[in-house]
Amino acid sequence: MRQYECFELALKGAEPEGSWTQVDLQAEFVCEGNIRRVEGFYAGDGVYKVRFYPDRAGRYSWKVTGALNTRGEEMCMAAEMDRREEIRRTTASHPGRETCRTTGTGQGIVRVEGMHFRYDNGTWYRPFGTTVYALAHQEKALVDTTMETLRGAPFNKVRFCVFPKHYDFNHNEPPYFPFEKKEGGWDVHRPNFAFWEALEGRIRELDAMGIQGDLILFHPYDRWGFSELGKEDSLVYLDYLLRRLSAMPNLWWSLANEYDLMPGYSHKDWEDFAGFVAKHDPYGHCLSNHNCMAYWDFSQKEITHCSIQDVNVSEVPELWEQYGKPVIFDECRYEGNIIHSWGNLSAREMTRRFWTATCCGGYCTHGETYYSEDEVLWWAKGGTLKGESPARIAFLREIVESLPGPLDFMGEGLGAFTETQLQTMQEQGPSEEFRENFFLMAMLELPRERLRSFLVKERVALGHCGQEAYLKYLERQSASVTELSLPQNGSYRVEVIDTWNMTRTVAAKNVCGKVRVNLPGREDMAVLALRQ
Amino acid sequence: MRQYECFELALKGAEPEGSWTQVDLQAEFVCEGNIRRVEGFYAGDGVYKVRFYPDRAGRYSWKVTGALNTRGEEMCMAAEMDRREEIRRTTASHPGRETCRTTGTGQGIVRVEGMHFRYDNGTWYRPFGTTVYALAHQEKALVDTTMETLRGAPFNKVRFCVFPKHYDFNHNEPPYFPFEKKEGGWDVHRPNFAFWEALEGRIRELDAMGIQGDLILFHPYDRWGFSELGKEDSLVYLDYLLRRLSAMPNLWWSLANEYDLMPGYSHKDWEDFAGFVAKHDPYGHCLSNHNCMAYWDFSQKEITHCSIQDVNVSEVPELWEQYGKPVIFDECRYEGNIIHSWGNLSAREMTRRFWTATCCGGYCTHGETYYSEDEVLWWAKGGTLKGESPARIAFLREIVESLPGPLDFMGEGLGAFTETQLQTMQEQGPSEEFRENFFLMAMLELPRERLRSFLVKERVALGHCGQEAYLKYLERQSASVTELSLPQNGSYRVEVIDTWNMTRTVAAKNVCGKVRVNLPGREDMAVLALRQ
Repeated sequence: MRQYECFELALKGAEPEGSWTQVDLQAEFVCEGNIRRVEGFYAGDGVYKVRFYPDRAGRYSWKVTGALNTRGEEMCMAAEMDRREEIRRTTASHPGRETCRTTGTGQGIVRVEGMHFRYDNGTWYRPFGTTVYALAHQEKALVDTTMETLRGAPFNKVRFCVFPKHYDFNHNEPPYFPFEKKEGGWDVHRPNFAFWEALEGRIRELDAMGIQGDLILFHPYDRWGFSELGKEDSLVYLDYLLRRLSAMPNLWWSLANEYDLMPGYSHKDWEDFAGFVAKHDPYGHCLSNHNCMAYWDFSQKEITHCSIQDVNVSEVPELWEQYGKPVIFDECRYEGNIIHSWGNLSAREMTRRFWTATCCGGYCTHGETYYSEDEVLWWAKGGTLKGESPARIAFLREIVESLPGPLDFMGEGLGAFTETQLQTMQEQGPSEEFRENFFLMAMLELPRERLRSFLVKERVALGHCGQEAYLKYLERQSASVTELSLPQNGSYRVEVIDTWNMTRTVAAKNVCGKVRVNLPGREDMAVLALRQ
Repeated sequence: MRQYECFELALKGAEPEGSWTQVDLQAEFVCEGNIRRVEGFYAGDGVYKVRFYPDRAGRYSWKVTGALNTRGEEMCMAAEMDRREEIRRTTASHPGRETCRTTGTGQGIVRVEGMHFRYDNGTWYRPFGTTVYALAHQEKALVDTTMETLRGAPFNKVRFCVFPKHYDFNHNEPPYFPFEKKEGGWDVHRPNFAFWEALEGRIRELDAMGIQGDLILFHPYDRWGFSELGKEDSLVYLDYLLRRLSAMPNLWWSLANEYDLMPGYSHKDWEDFAGFVAKHDPYGHCLSNHNCMAYWDFSQKEITHCSIQDVNVSEVPELWEQYGKPVIFDECRYEGNIIHSWGNLSAREMTRRFWTATCCGGYCTHGETYYSEDEVLWWAKGGTLKGESPARIAFLREIVESLPGPLDFMGEGLGAFTETQLQTMQEQGPSEEFRENFFLMAMLELPRERLRSFLVKERVALGHCGQEAYLKYLERQSASVTELSLPQNGSYRVEVIDTWNMTRTVAAKNVCGKVRVNLPGREDMAVLALRQ
């Protein structure tokens, strides 16, 4: 047992009677008085498994209970059943114990902290995601290529679906399905073990590369019937998935891609799914629900962060105010050249959205849709990357990860106010200090429904990391000069960053207070001030 | 007297007693039973003038009335007073008559027709404006240079101020002021005739170049006190201005630049100014009021069109719905490189805003703010143009003016709906035909306050001119292909337009219905389909 890594017990027994997904198998893990109860699952071929994620090192003991062998046979020692090394030894009726060691390699599950994310080991995690919806549903050779591409790419999160995808450029049949077919649909009580083993294998590969799997549990683009399982079967599916996968550290749950395009599920269903996932995932992985149009209500208590489809990547402060949770623009459209407007961003534009979201305190997710005759587009099938944004995203990631902590929105000028602050001033009148602010007073005359668009227009993508670092992104401004207002009591080194050409040039050293910085008068520039 | 041109009577009399701006001088012009009453003004040096704009050809008669000579002297024949040729002969007490001829050169005043503009002679007028706020307040040599630049530029409207400008890069004193100084302020009853003559001279020069003067009557950037005249004096000033300038055909009235930054005037004052201008301008020149932040209420009956400061150049359909009037984005920020975010658009971005506004059925206005050590920036002082957008604006103007009429918004996909249409569907439920539209049904789930931003995201800048022409602007989409849905019963020639490199390439001939058009997969492309 190793801290932050999935621990697995395997038990041999008779094939379950009835459901193969909802078997009666539980385990209780105790470490220094802390008890965690988890559920096991049937892995096929007479093997039952219990997986557990230890978030602390120490002496663990456990016991396994349940009436999984409905024919009354005693489960035999797992050691006797086969020689696969990863299968650990125990019995259902006897307790086990083991020391969980700190290895220093695993970082653990990513969790929300404030408006940002941290691994269980305390390291900050900044999502730089990409999207390969049908990653797991391609032929092995293509998935291998995808994995190889990810190894060299700047992404540390990948959004992909449990169910296969049917859509433009997605007409192939997947190698296997998550469940067995039955008359008129899918038998969610009969998992297709080969599918789940392959899926887990890919998740482990991602983990080895330091990549989070943002697993999409439902989605609408379907010709097989997985988008219309119905609520009851959907809960059975979720139950099985959570028993199998919850203990894998590098997973997030995305209830749906585009929940609002799935007429088979009501708003209440999604609320219930969120509740079910939160209840049945013992470890509290990140959980969200991704829209096509109307955002999910991220204030729902089980939802950990905002997973947004929209192009408004500078509205992080407003989203923070509204939901009080971290903001990831999981689809801000894709770099590519296809006919659809969501799939033909230039590489510059994709890069801009990353920079803007980042400097406003949020996070962004990449996708790529360059047309290809073989219909292998990265966004759905993976393969290789063709675009020019990943190199720039790597450049940004390197800068951001060199900072001592996450970037919070700061802004400047009128765009530094938030919608709520202005609404309050409209209702209650501005405080004394603002009454001489000519522009602010005029801004308060805006109709309430125009406040946000005005703020966004005035917004400066300026983030800070305490007083340690200030990162200002000029986006499309082609300025020949900009200004930073640094603390008077610090000493800063200022760099001019060309976000497209990926250059960093020191512009000033040992400066503080109001600093003017010359710029080359073209788009895509940024300025970084680092405390020395 | 020539149709569509300013006709002027000059009268010699004694210097007015009391106000030199509000003199008692009226004239009545009659043509085939149509009567128009106008007011005259004092032009200095014992000369009174009456100006008249004949919008039709024919036999005119007139009589002049008023007690302008408060010392009871009969006004003498203008012929006796001097030899200036342009001064026409009449007396105050005797009627005159003259035939007004059609010359074919003047086009007359620009008026609103539907969501667009037309000259009095029926020719469509498409505003392609620029901005030189303090044009009239520079030394003669610089104004001459500005005029020379305008002669070679693509602009047919220029926004400029009556009052001088004080602001960044605007610290010089103007050669003269509109009124004489008095203790503690300005004497609006004593016009500075040299100022008004110079201003009129420049307006006539613009007219000769086919350029509308969008005259800004008030503005906040001031160190002399013109932004704080007070309401009473402001009305005296407006009265004089309207007596002098209303008969000049190429003028528009912009009540203010950034009315909402002028704490000296209330909302009611602006409403009253609009009413006053509409009442005292006998010809109904275009009239609007330009915001910094909150738009003026363009639905006010005297307002002819929306003169907007904002960056939302694709929101034309929403603005049409809200105000029912033509939409001009008179400030969508400026091409340049200064520190202010409103003054450092790239040339590409300025060009894009023109194309987007145009293809959405609206109009756009240019400005340029490249930093210069001599502080001569085009946007305020004129001089020469340095930017790269004017050539592209000329290219766009040529295309647009080759069409048989103005472009109306058409759109496609979800972005073709308007906010009001969606709100109505939200309230009343969608009609039968839409209930199977998966995406539309999801869109109706959007919170009311998010409808507009969603529509704008989905908007395609596609305009049409009846079934004669379709102009689709792909803006930042880097598509390798797009589609047009042309009428089945027409035969069209399709061109691919590179809006930045200014090339036009025929892509198809004799096509109709749904047409796929290949594109080079980069930003700034457009497609034009013209009925053959």
